Amino acid sequence: MAASSIRFGPGVTAEVGMDFRNLGVRRVALVTDATLRALRPVEVAVAALERERVRYAVYADVRVEPGEGSIKHAVSWAKAEQPDAFLAVGGGSVMDTAKLMNLYTCYPSASFLDFVNKPLGGGRPIDKPLKPLICVPTTAGTGSETTGTAIFDLAGKRAKTGVAHRALKPLLGICDPLNTRTMPSAVHASSGLDVLCHSLESWTAIPYHERVPRPTNPILRPAYQGANPISDIFSLQALRATVKYLPRAVRDPDDAEAQSQMLLAATLAGVGFGNAGVHLCHGMSYPISSQNPARYHHPGYVVPHPIIPHGVSVAVTAPAVFRFTGPSNPDRHLAAAEIFGVDIANVKSESAGEVLSEALSEFLVKLGDQPRGLKALGFSEGDVDGLVEGTIPQRRVLMLAPNLASEEEAEKGREQLRGLFLDAMEY
Amino acid sequence: MAASSIRFGPGVTAEVGMDFRNLGVRRVALVTDATLRALRPVEVAVAALERERVRYAVYADVRVEPGEGSIKHAVSWAKAEQPDAFLAVGGGSVMDTAKLMNLYTCYPSASFLDFVNKPLGGGRPIDKPLKPLICVPTTAGTGSETTGTAIFDLAGKRAKTGVAHRALKPLLGICDPLNTRTMPSAVHASSGLDVLCHSLESWTAIPYHERVPRPTNPILRPAYQGANPISDIFSLQALRATVKYLPRAVRDPDDAEAQSQMLLAATLAGVGFGNAGVHLCHGMSYPISSQNPARYHHPGYVVPHPIIPHGVSVAVTAPAVFRFTGPSNPDRHLAAAEIFGVDIANVKSESAGEVLSEALSEFLVKLGDQPRGLKALGFSEGDVDGLVEGTIPQRRVLMLAPNLASEEEAEKGREQLRGLFLDAMEY
Repeated sequence: MAASSIRFGPGVTAEVGMDFRNLGVRRVALVTDATLRALRPVEVAVAALERERVRYAVYADVRVEPGEGSIKHAVSWAKAEQPDAFLAVGGGSVMDTAKLMNLYTCYPSASFLDFVNKPLGGGRPIDKPLKPLICVPTTAGTGSETTGTAIFDLAGKRAKTGVAHRALKPLLGICDPLNTRTMPSAVHASSGLDVLCHSLESWTAIPYHERVPRPTNPILRPAYQGANPISDIFSLQALRATVKYLPRAVRDPDDAEAQSQMLLAATLAGVGFGNAGVHLCHGMSYPISSQNPARYHHPGYVVPHPIIPHGVSVAVTAPAVFRFTGPSNPDRHLAAAEIFGVDIANVKSESAGEVLSEALSEFLVKLGDQPRGLKALGFSEGDVDGLVEGTIPQRRVLMLAPNLASEEEAEKGREQLRGLFLDAMEY
Repeated sequence: MAASSIRFGPGVTAEVGMDFRNLGVRRVALVTDATLRALRPVEVAVAALERERVRYAVYADVRVEPGEGSIKHAVSWAKAEQPDAFLAVGGGSVMDTAKLMNLYTCYPSASFLDFVNKPLGGGRPIDKPLKPLICVPTTAGTGSETTGTAIFDLAGKRAKTGVAHRALKPLLGICDPLNTRTMPSAVHASSGLDVLCHSLESWTAIPYHERVPRPTNPILRPAYQGANPISDIFSLQALRATVKYLPRAVRDPDDAEAQSQMLLAATLAGVGFGNAGVHLCHGMSYPISSQNPARYHHPGYVVPHPIIPHGVSVAVTAPAVFRFTGPSNPDRHLAAAEIFGVDIANVKSESAGEVLSEALSEFLVKLGDQPRGLKALGFSEGDVDGLVEGTIPQRRVLMLAPNLASEEEAEKGREQLRGLFLDAMEY
């Protein structure tokens, strides 16, 4: 496995000008969103660039939970600007948009779907190094500063998809706890839930040596390899930190220790799932966020359109998912339950999934302001078939889901997903 | 921090031909030593290259614990061969020699000392990418497949030194448990002790945020950054695995699980210390191995010259070192002692160093065939001044030693090192 470079510490954002100067970069595209444009993280980054006389142009039109349209807008801008390097200051939406701006300016004649994951896109591998990208996360969630993945909504497909390739990885992630202080409490909560699911899904993903088909050449290995001894270390450590610090970070915006530890946890989880992969919570979340039939607008999110934040849509199915995956590896599910504080001494293996599911539900309820199932987000049983159809194309993550029927048994798999969505209606 | 790519699993060596073909490499320098030349790891690697029709030339003259002379010999060979890439199959000596062959063929007009660590060398930074290097470790110890460090004896200086720079890092480490089966038991033991000290030293090194002087530009950060939240995870996991599996691996050469886990532990410890650094055990080990006044030849090492293996020379001072460093961070020393099985519930902070020291001594004694102190290696009190003088130039690691006087208080530092060597005479 490969990891990006990570720099962690309060104040390290101020070094980013020197980083670009050290790289010999003359013109940087600073990618952010309209809200952040006026906030401290961007201000510090801009001052750092100016201090080192690195020229820059700002793109601040990134959309939260980006779609094909907003990505294409950003790519056109970048093609016209022709920067030598990219600097993303923001959350997952900003970092993922910047990765795609970088990709498509390095392949100016590629069509948009060429690199998009199969089966929705062509799954074309990136066969040359891209321009340097430095990511400065302002949320503690996505871990995108460590991964080679960029996710967005594909117009007309009612599902999210993305591009996943090692070459998309940022050169450097600058994790500065001073930058997550601008997060509203609701963003703390939902981005922290993303970390929770990254760590739990990568910890329970099928093991790397059971992934089929085995590639005939190492270059064909997917970015998501299945749970492995190195990703395990990152995923478990991130889970421990999230269980301990997320409730504090949500409750008290001035708890600097909790916020700093959550930023680190997000990065650790990023390395874990960036190599091991995620599975059902993420695979099922894309149609949930994307379809949003009742135009749900999550409280605390200041955006001019309905939104089921990514972290909310992954966590809402988690109690159902880990009940379902429990039998695949009871020991791992019990180890996770123990991290939530469950005394597992007398728990039987058969109950491992149920016990983890209950611990998770309790954690979510105590965290506060979370929908207790898909119903609370406005979904009804009539939406389940659409959700299943929006999940099926997430082959890249579903192939890592334990207990799920393989692609060859398509009908059985659909039935299992239907059961999972129904079970996720209420917890 | 940055990590090399690691591929782990039984049989993965057979993929190395495809790796070079994927890289577009036409001619590989295969670097190994005379013993390994005839053994299975080299045989498998050669077959893999031939299967993919990658041309190669073999350099099998690497010396165990290499010196300036053997490095220069290897570099001359490489300059004449002009390979596109390097493949190291062997232990730390082989991997470190291959790193330096790569470096000096990429800088053909550099003088040998230019890149060597200060103060013995010029400490010139490597300012361009080197040729691809793939490392296939055949011992479970050095972790060199993950690091940017190459260590050797400097003629006439009675001390080891080396080159340390991120650019020296291998592109890929192929960790194949089938390759460590050729290790004699004595090599298992001493290379495992290297892992033990890598993990303990990096776990107890001064924290990254206390390292002084602070660099004015991120490019000036040393490869060894001090203990940090990411290296901690690797170091502790490696320590746990070593305490559990090293005794089994030494006792039973057919214990495939223990051997495989030790190979993984060595790699994890490599990532840990490769980013956090090592300190006193390593700093003091270089003159121990290098000076060897009684021409000690460690039992089980089939080499035609006297040898204090690297792992033996680092572990021999460990009980004294961690007694000394205990007060710097009692919690960390107690956490380490707990991994050795000590019940720390009622141990006072003041005893943390002593308790870890005792746990270590007991572990070393039980492992068997280890010298119980410097006396058993043939050192006497009259050698201590020479050992101290050989340690002082190891500034790169001494700056990470907790409790040690700074460079400015040179005499106090010498006195502390003298005390440590005297304390290490017997345990």
